[in-house]
Amino acid sequence: MSNSVIIAIDVMGGDKGPEEIIYGASISKERHPDSKYIFFGDSKEINKIIRKFSNLQGCFEIIGTDSVVSPDDKPSVVLRKSKNTSMGESLDWLKNKKVDALVSAGNTGALMALSKFKLRTLSGISRPAIATTIPHSYGEFVMLDLGANVECSTENFIQFAIMGAEFAKIILGKEKPKIGILNVGTEQEKGKASLQEASEYLKNSHLSDQFSGFVEGNAITNGVVDVVVTDGFTGNIALKTAEGIAKLCAFYIRRMFLDSFLGKISYLLIKNSLGLLKEKLDPRTRNGALFLGLNGIVVKSHGGADALSFASAIDIAFEFSKEGVGDKIIKGIDNLKSSREVEID
Amino acid sequence: MSNSVIIAIDVMGGDKGPEEIIYGASISKERHPDSKYIFFGDSKEINKIIRKFSNLQGCFEIIGTDSVVSPDDKPSVVLRKSKNTSMGESLDWLKNKKVDALVSAGNTGALMALSKFKLRTLSGISRPAIATTIPHSYGEFVMLDLGANVECSTENFIQFAIMGAEFAKIILGKEKPKIGILNVGTEQEKGKASLQEASEYLKNSHLSDQFSGFVEGNAITNGVVDVVVTDGFTGNIALKTAEGIAKLCAFYIRRMFLDSFLGKISYLLIKNSLGLLKEKLDPRTRNGALFLGLNGIVVKSHGGADALSFASAIDIAFEFSKEGVGDKIIKGIDNLKSSREVEID
Repeated sequence: MSNSVIIAIDVMGGDKGPEEIIYGASISKERHPDSKYIFFGDSKEINKIIRKFSNLQGCFEIIGTDSVVSPDDKPSVVLRKSKNTSMGESLDWLKNKKVDALVSAGNTGALMALSKFKLRTLSGISRPAIATTIPHSYGEFVMLDLGANVECSTENFIQFAIMGAEFAKIILGKEKPKIGILNVGTEQEKGKASLQEASEYLKNSHLSDQFSGFVEGNAITNGVVDVVVTDGFTGNIALKTAEGIAKLCAFYIRRMFLDSFLGKISYLLIKNSLGLLKEKLDPRTRNGALFLGLNGIVVKSHGGADALSFASAIDIAFEFSKEGVGDKIIKGIDNLKSSREVEID
Repeated sequence: MSNSVIIAIDVMGGDKGPEEIIYGASISKERHPDSKYIFFGDSKEINKIIRKFSNLQGCFEIIGTDSVVSPDDKPSVVLRKSKNTSMGESLDWLKNKKVDALVSAGNTGALMALSKFKLRTLSGISRPAIATTIPHSYGEFVMLDLGANVECSTENFIQFAIMGAEFAKIILGKEKPKIGILNVGTEQEKGKASLQEASEYLKNSHLSDQFSGFVEGNAITNGVVDVVVTDGFTGNIALKTAEGIAKLCAFYIRRMFLDSFLGKISYLLIKNSLGLLKEKLDPRTRNGALFLGLNGIVVKSHGGADALSFASAIDIAFEFSKEGVGDKIIKGIDNLKSSREVEID
């Protein structure tokens, strides 16, 4: 195919069905006219839906698959029978470099297990991580890992720092993103030994001027760092707790306006700004987590994503395809190794 | 002394100085007229300040101490030289049952280390935990551990469930509080082995009808359970992230009202409700974390607490002194052991 970015889309992964996902591609297409799509899934259904989206005509291909990875499938089961699933086939295309990136709203555990198995990790990276952006007072920060690894070693944390920094350079446009490790205190002796070792290592590496040491949960929303490194267990819980609290705030705000007559008038006056605030608190506008550290760009969309939300995930895939993030991570790891006498592992 | 509740107060612990703390006692005294206070700290300073609070006259005693545990003191150092510090002396009084409870805004690590050393854990409890209440959509839930134990075992999680349930009975007034274990998914095979084992154990214990299994970070703010059990590392980070996000929301709301002329008018109309919302998002109104699982009631206030906030911490100490939470926890552990064929440890 041409110079355009080609994105594989697992059409069968979302809770809301294929139409929402294809509609998402149509929204993203408006923002990135030079992208093409390969849709993986039930070809009959895709063919029926795709006619509704005129801007997709002439820039897509359909690869029919018979089987689907369900949200309840365990990763171990999926590894054995991924053949002819929309997730497995689309990953094969990515592995064989027939597409530039892949977007799926399917089962996270299965997608990560299959991605690791088919794509393998980048040279110098022991484990991939899931990364996304989160808003702070005056911008956004990158956080990783958000769930790929329940337990992490010193080595993993150091590699996440490199990967997160490369992600932040592209997505936040910062030349030297500041990196912090999430911990229960800022002093060097706080928290787990693996975190202390990783911090010590980074302080003495070529990243020393970007490394801010430990950061606490209440500081990350102040924008003190651009990259927050943590293990997948803590990261997943912190992110989901943040989502829960943001929803709770939105609920309180709604009630404040609707519980009284004056509140309702006040609401009419501030309706527009409130819309902007809602958008800020709405995770749909920044849907899309990247699997970092693999030989290929895999973007995981929320399972419950609607079209708008899925379009954001495709946008991320598009952006990263243009940037060659994999090569940059490999270079980062090489720099780290050569900046230290002692090897990481 | 009489039947009134006697509370030891470490006057030297707060970042804002002794006056704020004594003012806090004066606020709490209004709410609990039958409480008495023993103030530990610089007696000259306390004597000077206390004259300003007429409602405290006749219901306090001052124990002069020369030394102070500073916010930077490491727990190991404090253990060696706690003698004659306001924290160490007040804990001795609690240990010797000369007071019913203790409130301190001092260094958390030091306070926990000293409390463990001087008070020892309750019979059947291997490790104490820090617990507090957090708001959800239509009430509050209890969360523990919030930082006493960076790593936790299956046994610890089971004991936290018992302790959290007893805490919730008193503070939330629920007869059979629902208990959940914080995890990265709700399925039994998710997360760490110790969590899976604890979940399996509780499902087959006398708490089975109260135990809801695993809960995720975005569900706890919906009020799905009354008690959220987690390790001190994850709990500390989840709580602080929640605080950070709540602050971020408050910042967005403020900006929404102040950024435009219509916003300012809207603000005037809704000022009162906004005050209530601010109070809801304000951690000061529910300051005070309880150290659970010790032979004595220790309440930790935020270091930066103001008088209002410190008064909330004293309120908690007062309430728990009346309830005999320690005996209830011991009974809970006994019930658990007798409801299982296999012992916990």
